[in-house]
Amino acid sequence: MNFDLVITNGIVVTSSGILHPPNSDIAVIDGVITQVGRGLTALAGPDTRIIDAEGAHVTPGGVDTHMHLSQGAGGLTMDGFDTGTRSAVCGGTTTVVCFAAQEKWDEDVLKVVSDYHAKSDYGFHLILTNPTPAVLDEQLPILRKEGRISSVKLYMMYDNRQLSDAQIMAVLARTRQLGMTTMIHAENWDMIKFIINQLEERGQTDPYFHAVSRPPLVETEAAYRAICIAELMDTPILLVHVSTKASRDHVRAAQTRMLPIHAETCPQYLYLMSDVLKMPDFEGAKYVCSPPLRDSPDDIAALWEGIANGTFTTLSSDHCPSFWDHPKGKKLGLDAKTKIAKFSAIPNGLPGVETRLPLGYQGVIDGKISIEKLVEVACTNPAKLYGLDKKGVIAPGYDADIVIWYPTGKALVTIENGKLHHRVDYTPYEGFQLNNWPRYTILRGTVV
Amino acid sequence: MNFDLVITNGIVVTSSGILHPPNSDIAVIDGVITQVGRGLTALAGPDTRIIDAEGAHVTPGGVDTHMHLSQGAGGLTMDGFDTGTRSAVCGGTTTVVCFAAQEKWDEDVLKVVSDYHAKSDYGFHLILTNPTPAVLDEQLPILRKEGRISSVKLYMMYDNRQLSDAQIMAVLARTRQLGMTTMIHAENWDMIKFIINQLEERGQTDPYFHAVSRPPLVETEAAYRAICIAELMDTPILLVHVSTKASRDHVRAAQTRMLPIHAETCPQYLYLMSDVLKMPDFEGAKYVCSPPLRDSPDDIAALWEGIANGTFTTLSSDHCPSFWDHPKGKKLGLDAKTKIAKFSAIPNGLPGVETRLPLGYQGVIDGKISIEKLVEVACTNPAKLYGLDKKGVIAPGYDADIVIWYPTGKALVTIENGKLHHRVDYTPYEGFQLNNWPRYTILRGTVV
Amino acid sequence: MNFDLVITNGIVVTSSGILHPPNSDIAVIDGVITQVGRGLTALAGPDTRIIDAEGAHVTPGGVDTHMHLSQGAGGLTMDGFDTGTRSAVCGGTTTVVCFAAQEKWDEDVLKVVSDYHAKSDYGFHLILTNPTPAVLDEQLPILRKEGRISSVKLYMMYDNRQLSDAQIMAVLARTRQLGMTTMIHAENWDMIKFIINQLEERGQTDPYFHAVSRPPLVETEAAYRAICIAELMDTPILLVHVSTKASRDHVRAAQTRMLPIHAETCPQYLYLMSDVLKMPDFEGAKYVCSPPLRDSPDDIAALWEGIANGTFTTLSSDHCPSFWDHPKGKKLGLDAKTKIAKFSAIPNGLPGVETRLPLGYQGVIDGKISIEKLVEVACTNPAKLYGLDKKGVIAPGYDADIVIWYPTGKALVTIENGKLHHRVDYTPYEGFQLNNWPRYTILRGTVV
Amino acid sequence: MNFDLVITNGIVVTSSGILHPPNSDIAVIDGVITQVGRGLTALAGPDTRIIDAEGAHVTPGGVDTHMHLSQGAGGLTMDGFDTGTRSAVCGGTTTVVCFAAQEKWDEDVLKVVSDYHAKSDYGFHLILTNPTPAVLDEQLPILRKEGRISSVKLYMMYDNRQLSDAQIMAVLARTRQLGMTTMIHAENWDMIKFIINQLEERGQTDPYFHAVSRPPLVETEAAYRAICIAELMDTPILLVHVSTKASRDHVRAAQTRMLPIHAETCPQYLYLMSDVLKMPDFEGAKYVCSPPLRDSPDDIAALWEGIANGTFTTLSSDHCPSFWDHPKGKKLGLDAKTKIAKFSAIPNGLPGVETRLPLGYQGVIDGKISIEKLVEVACTNPAKLYGLDKKGVIAPGYDADIVIWYPTGKALVTIENGKLHHRVDYTPYEGFQLNNWPRYTILRGTVV
Repeated sequence: MNFDLVITNGIVVTSSGILHPPNSDIAVIDGVITQVGRGLTALAGPDTRIIDAEGAHVTPGGVDTHMHLSQGAGGLTMDGFDTGTRSAVCGGTTTVVCFAAQEKWDEDVLKVVSDYHAKSDYGFHLILTNPTPAVLDEQLPILRKEGRISSVKLYMMYDNRQLSDAQIMAVLARTRQLGMTTMIHAENWDMIKFIINQLEERGQTDPYFHAVSRPPLVETEAAYRAICIAELMDTPILLVHVSTKASRDHVRAAQTRMLPIHAETCPQYLYLMSDVLKMPDFEGAKYVCSPPLRDSPDDIAALWEGIANGTFTTLSSDHCPSFWDHPKGKKLGLDAKTKIAKFSAIPNGLPGVETRLPLGYQGVIDGKISIEKLVEVACTNPAKLYGLDKKGVIAPGYDADIVIWYPTGKALVTIENGKLHHRVDYTPYEGFQLNNWPRYTILRGTVV
Repeated sequence: MNFDLVITNGIVVTSSGILHPPNSDIAVIDGVITQVGRGLTALAGPDTRIIDAEGAHVTPGGVDTHMHLSQGAGGLTMDGFDTGTRSAVCGGTTTVVCFAAQEKWDEDVLKVVSDYHAKSDYGFHLILTNPTPAVLDEQLPILRKEGRISSVKLYMMYDNRQLSDAQIMAVLARTRQLGMTTMIHAENWDMIKFIINQLEERGQTDPYFHAVSRPPLVETEAAYRAICIAELMDTPILLVHVSTKASRDHVRAAQTRMLPIHAETCPQYLYLMSDVLKMPDFEGAKYVCSPPLRDSPDDIAALWEGIANGTFTTLSSDHCPSFWDHPKGKKLGLDAKTKIAKFSAIPNGLPGVETRLPLGYQGVIDGKISIEKLVEVACTNPAKLYGLDKKGVIAPGYDADIVIWYPTGKALVTIENGKLHHRVDYTPYEGFQLNNWPRYTILRGTVV
Repeated sequence: MNFDLVITNGIVVTSSGILHPPNSDIAVIDGVITQVGRGLTALAGPDTRIIDAEGAHVTPGGVDTHMHLSQGAGGLTMDGFDTGTRSAVCGGTTTVVCFAAQEKWDEDVLKVVSDYHAKSDYGFHLILTNPTPAVLDEQLPILRKEGRISSVKLYMMYDNRQLSDAQIMAVLARTRQLGMTTMIHAENWDMIKFIINQLEERGQTDPYFHAVSRPPLVETEAAYRAICIAELMDTPILLVHVSTKASRDHVRAAQTRMLPIHAETCPQYLYLMSDVLKMPDFEGAKYVCSPPLRDSPDDIAALWEGIANGTFTTLSSDHCPSFWDHPKGKKLGLDAKTKIAKFSAIPNGLPGVETRLPLGYQGVIDGKISIEKLVEVACTNPAKLYGLDKKGVIAPGYDADIVIWYPTGKALVTIENGKLHHRVDYTPYEGFQLNNWPRYTILRGTVV
Repeated sequence: MNFDLVITNGIVVTSSGILHPPNSDIAVIDGVITQVGRGLTALAGPDTRIIDAEGAHVTPGGVDTHMHLSQGAGGLTMDGFDTGTRSAVCGGTTTVVCFAAQEKWDEDVLKVVSDYHAKSDYGFHLILTNPTPAVLDEQLPILRKEGRISSVKLYMMYDNRQLSDAQIMAVLARTRQLGMTTMIHAENWDMIKFIINQLEERGQTDPYFHAVSRPPLVETEAAYRAICIAELMDTPILLVHVSTKASRDHVRAAQTRMLPIHAETCPQYLYLMSDVLKMPDFEGAKYVCSPPLRDSPDDIAALWEGIANGTFTTLSSDHCPSFWDHPKGKKLGLDAKTKIAKFSAIPNGLPGVETRLPLGYQGVIDGKISIEKLVEVACTNPAKLYGLDKKGVIAPGYDADIVIWYPTGKALVTIENGKLHHRVDYTPYEGFQLNNWPRYTILRGTVV
């Protein structure tokens, strides 16, 4: 048949298991998977490209639904859609969903989304910071109807983003009606500000104090509050970047009661601890993200366990890159002239889209999660959750977004920023050694 | 000896157990207990009054540390210190602590407390609604030093009282330093207002909808948030009027971890359910309190269990009386002219100081708690918690505030408002039959 | 192409979701699914049978891995493999796994299994009641190697079956080595016998007292003990027929910690409560099973929730039929002559293989679980758990065991024993009205 | 007055708090406390002994209700009532309850108890290992009626002691009727034997493997089973020597539900960890007790927390001394000739009655528990639990068993076995430094 591509002999993984029999073939026509089974090479035509994946896992392309691209004033310090998506693809991620951010002064989210669509034709989550009646009652239904946004995202913190409980309820009342999931960044801003004030009074402003300013309770309280609000409103939410055992336990307890609570975690919380924030020469600033890296290996173990036991719906990167050696001062938190540090001035966020899937795969190699579970949280679930109904699964009818890995034991990769494709000057995983990396990334049937 | 009074042959109860041997005597001189033991009548002088308490429990006088007297504009609708304390004594309560309430516009709490002390020389909890730096840093230490207040009380709700998380933290930072316990009324005000708006839009304004407007989650969320804040600040709090199993469970879990969390419950939550709010002819308004009466017998069972298992530190009345048949409309919620009901206009609160201890004793008779436990939560603990160091215990050196009950099985009392001594026109327990009532209440050695 | 069968236009359900796009086609050759996708009818040959499933769910055939057939002396009172499997197919179940039961006196399980295989070529679970070293060290490895058994099953109760904790550990030490899951019937036999003795002393021997003799604690204790043993031995177990919230909670907690604990529940615990055991004229005996039907709707709700939240791996029938109107006395528990009842003489077990899948589907209609979840617990998971690697999934390469339901809303079925195909004289669901039933059951490509 | 003794100026502690005012006096006549209050020295007669306790805690004498004296064949290796009680008094413990042990072959517990009473007139717990109907139905009621035993103790382990679940239920059915508490040693004997067999097969027989043979699960399972049995029988039990967080959590959960579950812990589990079992030259054998010392500081923290939060009813010594350098081989586990070690031959148990109260007091100094809590678990509660109604409290009418400590900061004691008064050749706390020790121990009014 006139297949464009046949991937043969791979160990094909979907979230429901490894295809039976192992060593299956996948056939692709016009960028779409048309058949899955054995013996498809025999049906191949003369122009069919054949890729032999013998001994290797073949997974859906990664779906990263938590990326910040081209946000922020001028976008100087961040990846745009060019470098961001190139970096994604180089790490095996074939689908990304980014944010269109309403600012507090914006009253027209139709325009906000249009402006972002002008930069890229990707799908967007809409960050709501000013949920006026006009926004909720008129504009949001239009965006939803026209399919221009996948979801909305709310912040319980940051002065320029924070919504009150009342505002969150108002948004959920509308998203429930529109059938949308709402992403929530859950940290108690009053607590954080209180601690920052105390730290700054004492002159404790080095990067490490970023972690001190946001102890686990800050997240635990806000996560539980968000869950209560979701229960009251009977509306699904996704708690983004859950970083502690205590939050995970709240999510698990809610799920046990069948509340519509989803949760996401990120590789940085699975691999890094807060001690790196103490690195000298202001290198600690490279690791400032929010929630912060945690102090305890118990949290890390609990997050891996939470992926394995089904608590986490998605594993995202929360890719949010800023220059460390910034012209205006190291990561903007170390004044270039005065050499005075101030952790609260450092933009929160790490680069990570390119390393997300390989770091997840390392968890498979290390025996922490199964390959099926990785596919579920890094590909299938994020696609399902946000209605990307042709993504994240290897099956007939789905887009041929596919990653072919090296056969197990055949690759050893050392992460170096120089080899990565984002626009910033560091990776938090510099020097990490991984035992696999995407060998082929296929986007709609084309090897890229 | 020159005893003024000997109570003989009673079953003397202290929070640490029934005195050994049972049938002990208590001797009093100058209003203070001087001896406890057997054979004290033999030592009595000619002028000693002897009361024979054979077969009856003898307990410390009740200590009710949650009463609202003489608060509110004009005080027209509430008990003053005269009727309030008379009502207390008639129900076996010999010590009360009321509130001195700062209003949002008050900037000088020294004056607030002085004004209340002008009405009465009782101890007060200070309600803080405007915790400015001057209040916290200058005035509060003075009040504490002079012993003029027992504690502070904060509200997480009511437009004219609500403190933000940040304000609560600021208060706790100071009360921690001053070694004071902080009382917190925990309900999520945003949630309540959101639901009230929805109910009012639908015309659901009868008294019963008061309960609908405050589902258990409203309390659960706020209680958990208060616990998190107390943990962060490492400062003891008392959650007042806990009314649900879910809140109780949070308190218990916190106590298991040795967090300094105290909790109070009240007789109304142990005996009444929300169906009474449906009583016709606007009688439901009699039962409007906050948190509301609950829907489920599971909550009632959990609260009794919470007293028995030690979760609750105190059992208070939250006595807060208003006229039901008020000249300005039934409980101010039913417009006298238009006959339009509006539950949100009804003052929240029930009368209950006089019935508190007898209702608690009924729990003893019904086998829900022990008599020792009743003494602990209704007498000993509230005195300890607020530093009333001569109250709440029957032991040498303590004030001779004592209740002598009827011998078990010898009393049957039907509660009727006409027999009670508060100033309002109803009791929520009209017609309740109790199996005991204080036979003698002794205040500093004098039978009253 | 030379398809034997194409099922077209159906809503094809697999455990990982409804196939995209809905209204997919399935093609079958030689009893095996060869393709799944759209437009397969166009490729059909002249001899291809086409079944139009428009508007209907198309699911894998049911896999029931807990059925008792041809067990017991003479097998007179039970279904054999003939009626048992016919009944299964008529209810949409295309794969069954039954038991080969070692008796206490059997020392050669190779013979035991051979004897059962002589009756049927189905797969078997091996009931171990006499796990001697010869059985564990020599015979079990042979049976495993030759693929003659799927798993072993152990009982913590019944005088003729009970294993001690030490014996269970000895078995698990071996099954861990052989990579087998062990099924455990968890009830505390000492507790049961103690209560039965007390009941019989008081003459409380009617069928209802069967439920009294096995309160939830009996199961809770044993389930927890089995979980502890499995944790100690680090070996997977399946707790069969979990019937209470408390047991479910233990399973959930164990799974949260990633212990290898699987659990099964059955339709009788999802639909029936113990009050039916009080039916007059000894009809209550029809409902005697072990664990017993429970008293509380909370348990029923918890079990449905446990399916929905992923706690239960499988939904099985525990089909174990006996005649009610037995020649030797009503269900053998009512002496035909003396008319004296004795619940402890009634064989424990209900018929249910034919109604299992339709009752599960009713849960979908009633909104308790999703159709995907039903397929997961009733088809996919049981096949995976016991290594039936061509069963339970609709995908290329799997056996074409398929159920086509009626389009939603197009069927209303009343369960009557006369219409069922087992050999016993009652169904516990007599008169139940269901909103769907398998319209076509396809076994290896053939409509049966 | 004719006081024999007045203790003046002490900080008198009872379980319900420090007497008000601090610096109270206690007067004693004929070995009984007659008055408590201020100014009692002024009433003293010429022959009254006055002890000034200024600045020091004055507590009730310790009550140790878990001591093994004169048990075992010949009693050679253990303290008898002479050294045992002398050691107790020297550590501030004025009341002990020991065990009268039925052996498996004993059928007459009246005789068993009489034999023990012949050795001492102390109260006894009766260890039941052969609970025949005659024992339970005839002899136990007599012992109870005559007040000759305080309680019964059951073992779930040891070949010569283990009772089945059925036997435990039979005992509880009787103790419920007799109103007695039952002590239970909860470890799963099947698990232990299984692991010991595995260890011995591998030659792992050094003392440290004692701890390996009894992982926390062994206790957790049995403790939970005991709780379930107690719930089923609705009968109070005391779980002796709880040593893990997991068991503590089960107890706490049961208490939350108001099940009648008491628990005890011991100083060895609060101060020692299993690493001491690795001490060279077979010194590890000194620390063999059952349950074993635990591996994790989390367990130690949980036990202190469990005392502080009220989970533990009693703190006992489980004093059970054996010679380490025994003529028949080091602690009977190291063959004197062959030098072959065998941990399973080492008698389980540590000496500890003399150090119990000072180690508890150290917890007060270290801020882990309050002095009131120490008095509660080490004096008041054990007396209450076993009906010693004149012990464990400082109040009029109680026996004048009193400990006067050194004023805080005035004592520093190093524990050395040479200074202790038991008959064995080591203390597990050799070299521990404590900040206080009983200065005076008063037994029925007499300083001893």
